[in-house]
Amino acid sequence: MRIAFLCFYLFAFQISRAQTDSIAIRSLYNEILSHGVCYNRLDHLSNQIGGRLSGSVQAGQAVQWALETMKKEGFDSVWLQPVMVPHWERGEKEVAWFSMNGKKTPVHICALGNAIATPAAGLQANVVEVKNFDELRALGSQKIKGRIVFFNRPMDPLYIRTFEAYRDAVDQRSQGAIEAAKLGAAGVVVRSMASNIDIYPHTGAMRYHDSVPKIPACAISTADAEMLSKSLKNDASTRFYFKQSCQILADAPSYNVVAQITGSEKPGEIVLVGGHLDAWDNGNGAHDDGAGCVQSMEVLHVFKALGIRPKRTLRCVLFMNEENGLKGALKYAELAKTNNEHHLAAIESDAGGFTPRGFGVTGNEAQVAAAKKWEALLKPYGIDEIGKGGGGSDIGPLKDQGTVLIGLMPDSQRYFDLHHSAIDTFDKVSKRELELGAAGMAALAWLLCNYGL
Amino acid sequence: MRIAFLCFYLFAFQISRAQTDSIAIRSLYNEILSHGVCYNRLDHLSNQIGGRLSGSVQAGQAVQWALETMKKEGFDSVWLQPVMVPHWERGEKEVAWFSMNGKKTPVHICALGNAIATPAAGLQANVVEVKNFDELRALGSQKIKGRIVFFNRPMDPLYIRTFEAYRDAVDQRSQGAIEAAKLGAAGVVVRSMASNIDIYPHTGAMRYHDSVPKIPACAISTADAEMLSKSLKNDASTRFYFKQSCQILADAPSYNVVAQITGSEKPGEIVLVGGHLDAWDNGNGAHDDGAGCVQSMEVLHVFKALGIRPKRTLRCVLFMNEENGLKGALKYAELAKTNNEHHLAAIESDAGGFTPRGFGVTGNEAQVAAAKKWEALLKPYGIDEIGKGGGGSDIGPLKDQGTVLIGLMPDSQRYFDLHHSAIDTFDKVSKRELELGAAGMAALAWLLCNYGL
Repeated sequence: MRIAFLCFYLFAFQISRAQTDSIAIRSLYNEILSHGVCYNRLDHLSNQIGGRLSGSVQAGQAVQWALETMKKEGFDSVWLQPVMVPHWERGEKEVAWFSMNGKKTPVHICALGNAIATPAAGLQANVVEVKNFDELRALGSQKIKGRIVFFNRPMDPLYIRTFEAYRDAVDQRSQGAIEAAKLGAAGVVVRSMASNIDIYPHTGAMRYHDSVPKIPACAISTADAEMLSKSLKNDASTRFYFKQSCQILADAPSYNVVAQITGSEKPGEIVLVGGHLDAWDNGNGAHDDGAGCVQSMEVLHVFKALGIRPKRTLRCVLFMNEENGLKGALKYAELAKTNNEHHLAAIESDAGGFTPRGFGVTGNEAQVAAAKKWEALLKPYGIDEIGKGGGGSDIGPLKDQGTVLIGLMPDSQRYFDLHHSAIDTFDKVSKRELELGAAGMAALAWLLCNYGL
Repeated sequence: MRIAFLCFYLFAFQISRAQTDSIAIRSLYNEILSHGVCYNRLDHLSNQIGGRLSGSVQAGQAVQWALETMKKEGFDSVWLQPVMVPHWERGEKEVAWFSMNGKKTPVHICALGNAIATPAAGLQANVVEVKNFDELRALGSQKIKGRIVFFNRPMDPLYIRTFEAYRDAVDQRSQGAIEAAKLGAAGVVVRSMASNIDIYPHTGAMRYHDSVPKIPACAISTADAEMLSKSLKNDASTRFYFKQSCQILADAPSYNVVAQITGSEKPGEIVLVGGHLDAWDNGNGAHDDGAGCVQSMEVLHVFKALGIRPKRTLRCVLFMNEENGLKGALKYAELAKTNNEHHLAAIESDAGGFTPRGFGVTGNEAQVAAAKKWEALLKPYGIDEIGKGGGGSDIGPLKDQGTVLIGLMPDSQRYFDLHHSAIDTFDKVSKRELELGAAGMAALAWLLCNYGL
């Protein structure tokens, strides 16, 4: 009945292209807002499977679930792309405290992803607080040697888009252990990359460098970071203790999950929608990036539900290992090249399942301008901010193949309250907001499949 | 230091008006995003005072708190406007169930605001489900007489802005008891005006008509509404029972709370910012409309903090009794007329403390066009959708005096999940989102005070 209705409008009348587009987009929204499946799927992925870091049992379950779910849809092809991924495990729940005048105050920490363990008995040392690498280097090895370096530069609240504040703060987490170890530090504790003050530590990837000793590194919650900082101001001899038992195991086999509806007119031109299936182990990966996965699946689902065969090939890719290695993304781009596939455009959703406001487009001037012309069609849905620049980590490696990279841009205000933390859970996701993101992606995918860029 | 910085930019250089505006707006945002007080104030209003329906002890506490808080700020004038308000009380916690084949299933209900009580033993009757008044009338008095009418039309998910779905559904709540009583119904149960499915009933104002018998009316949670509807489909003889002990007491004395910073050049032209201080008793009135109150207070606060004296008079009004009578708003407009005050423009925040996206403007074509010219200045903050139409219940009565009415437009997707329910609590408010709304209002107030419309 719904399909008949759409076909009626699309084909029976001689209507203008803008009207056709407008009616088609309205149909995509109506279907998703009234019969969307992404929210229930996210419930399963978050609550039945949960955190699913590369190499974990849960990552394997997520792959199987996504494969079976999309196979049941009856898309033209659904397959797995094997890829070897890093396998880091957190181990036992971390323990930490600081002590001042003999009084121990417990604090909330978590090991950073890829970090090594402390000695089994834990690591205890005096603390040196710094805001950035310049301050660290100015102190020099004499003041750092044997100490625990406490990186405590907050995300800057003056940025309107929180991703910019994240970008400016994340070097503490990703490179802090390298810089501190160069000066002989015994360990590193990093203020969580969080936009709010609470007791949940936020994990995330960190790196070591082969030429520098590896030292244990953890994140501390923002509330505890404030408390620790205060203590240090009162008493510079404050000591910090933490214990973590994380380890890097041998690389493990895993998969990207891929599904497609083959294009009717230009099957060789691919429009990709995607997100990443892996998620940090300390939360349930609901916003990061369960949301992006179920939204991408929903795009193919709604085309199928409405009986729309796209002119170009529409492909959904759920990448593995975005969080700590990007191996899935690299493998995908490598295979695309090997197989001589032409990816016209790729849309990634990896910024949370919040109300969408637009898309960021990385392409040449003409391509960005062409996308901006669709703003009027998207305006009724409030997803009409089409700006230059944007994409996603997983689609990034396709850039060299000339693919236009597009990132869904949701409202960013709450994302870093929960990103990479224990509170990235399903209850933080609004059904409507999630669906609006999926519908926006479907609308843009529809335009891309019809008109290219 | 901050004041000096601003003055330096504003006055020391001969810079263009657009640059001046842009720098001033950035200063307002910076101050609120780094030293804002609205979030802590909302914590107090929501958690220390809580629900504060007109005539209640809590409403009185809220008035005193707002008065004292703004007096401490040292604004030019802070005063109370006495007004008599309705005083409805919920009484004991409501009880309800439906029964099928002798099995009672308890459901979550709450009395609608202004409703009368059931008999002390409760009201029990067969149920007739309808979607709208046409269906109700088509059934006729024979099928309605002595029954409980169950209005079960959901908010339409196809609207992108949820306020439009609310507008289309709310007649069931506001007039359902009148229409059902005309046909002899014994009582009314209304599906909550909610955009999600959960167990929290949403209250809200309903009306009686003098010429029609008054019958008890309650709201049922959406999850329970679905269950009741299913039961009725299986067994039309399903019976519904509810008991509520609400009552209307004598009108009570209360107040609007007003504060102002007098304009330096045109003190007789007033730019108003406001929200309503009363809130339903079943929640804490965090989003509705504690957010609007503390945001409006923040506008005056930031002007004071930055040492900005507006050219026109900037006034904050916290209205009493928006929820069930609008007496504060009517009194305010009446006094404005009596005192021959000229309100150039009024901005109301009463749509939740979520990420702001723009403003709706009700004025003549030229006024709307003038406001739209400010979109470029507001674009960096993502609050640049300036559309025609909008305002707020409390500022509405000023329309006859030629005031341009402006409503802050936050993202609306989550609002009706919690509006008028027990989960409209402080923890549902994001500090950043609240502050961004306040800063947007401050920016617009700054432009209005400088340039008029």
